[in-house]
Amino acid sequence: MDDHENDGRRAPMKRYCGTLCPKFQVAMDILAKPWNGLIIATLEEGPLRFSELAERLESIGDRMLSARLKELEARGLVSRRVHAGPPVRVDYTLTETGHGFKQVAAAITTWGDGLV
Amino acid sequence: MDDHENDGRRAPMKRYCGTLCPKFQVAMDILAKPWNGLIIATLEEGPLRFSELAERLESIGDRMLSARLKELEARGLVSRRVHAGPPVRVDYTLTETGHGFKQVAAAITTWGDGLV
Repeated sequence: MDDHENDGRRAPMKRYCGTLCPKFQVAMDILAKPWNGLIIATLEEGPLRFSELAERLESIGDRMLSARLKELEARGLVSRRVHAGPPVRVDYTLTETGHGFKQVAAAITTWGDGLV
Repeated sequence: MDDHENDGRRAPMKRYCGTLCPKFQVAMDILAKPWNGLIIATLEEGPLRFSELAERLESIGDRMLSARLKELEARGLVSRRVHAGPPVRVDYTLTETGHGFKQVAAAITTWGDGLV
């Protein structure tokens, strides 16, 4: 058995750098991919359907959005909900950990002030 | 003339999403690329030479590190310094805006606690 085997709930720990905090690195592993930060921040407004998310993110493609949502769901940040119909309705909402990104987004926005 | 012409000091403003703060989006444009966050966080320890940075980041390739450093320099986050020799010595250091990432890294690390 592989020590690093994924139990299905958590992404395996990737270690890039022995001099940086592993918690920082695991979070950056999510944020250092295109769209993830913007998707989480957009879902702060409340549950959204796929088409509503795609509309808000404008230039994202459907395939990219679909792949990102699957990843964020696997990382425990986004929850996909199926509401019984008819018509059946599917939406995406932040988990508690997903909502925790709010403080990160605030810090990033403050920092972004020096970049704009 | 193009309204969006780059004046050489600033990256052109990219807008992905009308419902999110542009300051957040310009910062995420930097952080949503592989290694950028880890490079900035590593340079928090002080000026480092290329080889020292590569050693700390372990699995980064030289070409990737070189490209990222050029980008971070262009975005005004990292400064490349050439010290007269002999032997001539080159190192990389954070600018004031680069140091400002420290607060972001702290928020990311706190958030990462729920992810590890």
